[in-house]
Amino acid sequence: MATFVIANGAAAMDSDVTIFFTFWGINVLRKAQPPRVSKGLLDRMFGMMMPKGPGKLRLSKMNMAGVGSMMMRYVMKTKNVMAPEELVAAARAAGIRLVVCSMSMDVMGIKKEELIDGIEIGGVGAYLGRAEQADMNLFI
Amino acid sequence: MATFVIANGAAAMDSDVTIFFTFWGINVLRKAQPPRVSKGLLDRMFGMMMPKGPGKLRLSKMNMAGVGSMMMRYVMKTKNVMAPEELVAAARAAGIRLVVCSMSMDVMGIKKEELIDGIEIGGVGAYLGRAEQADMNLFI
Amino acid sequence: MATFVIANGAAAMDSDVTIFFTFWGINVLRKAQPPRVSKGLLDRMFGMMMPKGPGKLRLSKMNMAGVGSMMMRYVMKTKNVMAPEELVAAARAAGIRLVVCSMSMDVMGIKKEELIDGIEIGGVGAYLGRAEQADMNLFI
Repeated sequence: MATFVIANGAAAMDSDVTIFFTFWGINVLRKAQPPRVSKGLLDRMFGMMMPKGPGKLRLSKMNMAGVGSMMMRYVMKTKNVMAPEELVAAARAAGIRLVVCSMSMDVMGIKKEELIDGIEIGGVGAYLGRAEQADMNLFI
Repeated sequence: MATFVIANGAAAMDSDVTIFFTFWGINVLRKAQPPRVSKGLLDRMFGMMMPKGPGKLRLSKMNMAGVGSMMMRYVMKTKNVMAPEELVAAARAAGIRLVVCSMSMDVMGIKKEELIDGIEIGGVGAYLGRAEQADMNLFI
Repeated sequence: MATFVIANGAAAMDSDVTIFFTFWGINVLRKAQPPRVSKGLLDRMFGMMMPKGPGKLRLSKMNMAGVGSMMMRYVMKTKNVMAPEELVAAARAAGIRLVVCSMSMDVMGIKKEELIDGIEIGGVGAYLGRAEQADMNLFI
């Protein structure tokens, strides 16, 4: 949530924004209905245990077996705050670059076809190169 | 803890410091004895479940139903390290600006009267404007 | 993991890198077999409950009483990704400065002899001084 609120805000203020996704963060970019891809057993297990896309994200605190997350979604809707999946869509519409860490994809056994369209794949070098040029750089 | 130790350190070195509080972070600025405010049911529930002020904070790890946090407080006291509520007081005394995210307040149903005096309220734009001028900018 | 992957990447790109370790982060620098040091009861309890060195680290999510961490280690090995202890060794070989927060050591009751060789000890002032000179500064 914080990542996309800040990124969308910066894009609205005409900044060039790139978001790098590592490990659990990649789950936000997974398709809810991914195509079948060939995978080993462990990769398949990892994939099943992790949330698929922003619609499946849970609160970092007070999740309470999903009740807290449902409450939060309900509250955000009644107060006209964007849901996680709307924040992702807005980021893409605003031209924010979404780069996924290649090592994380490899470790978690996630293939590019399982992720939403329009993302890029990059390593730590790509991240550092981009961060060096930037005025602001947050680890969230 | 880390936020206030770093902020107070920077203020002691004559830097201008602003802390932005979002979501759970706002709890640190809640009054222990807030005035009665009119609220909907969900907002009231949220409010009851979250810690009120720095005196109620728990450790991020090894909390162990409060035993870890109590131990940590005891250890910090015997070693003359500032408690969370002293860190907040020191930050205010040092003139550090405390800005609370308006969207988070809205989502969590927290009113300004429930927060300690002297705080400001701002949106993501206020944060980005301030972060752009700053030499250092941490997401903690 | 993220800290060392980014730090090692930056060192490989010829940047001067310093990592500051606070609170739980210090555990990564503890010797697996520390020498006996004289300690009070609470300090000893703290020391026993926390992981000793990178070989004992757990995943931030999906640890599942250690099964998730074991799986992750197995997966990383089969995919030729460096284990946490190899990342620490690589950081030291690359000349990355490892600075430990003196206040955290004090609160957690950790003595210098319990940490791996070649580390430095510094306070928040040392951190801020270094961060001010740096082009990039992450709180991870």
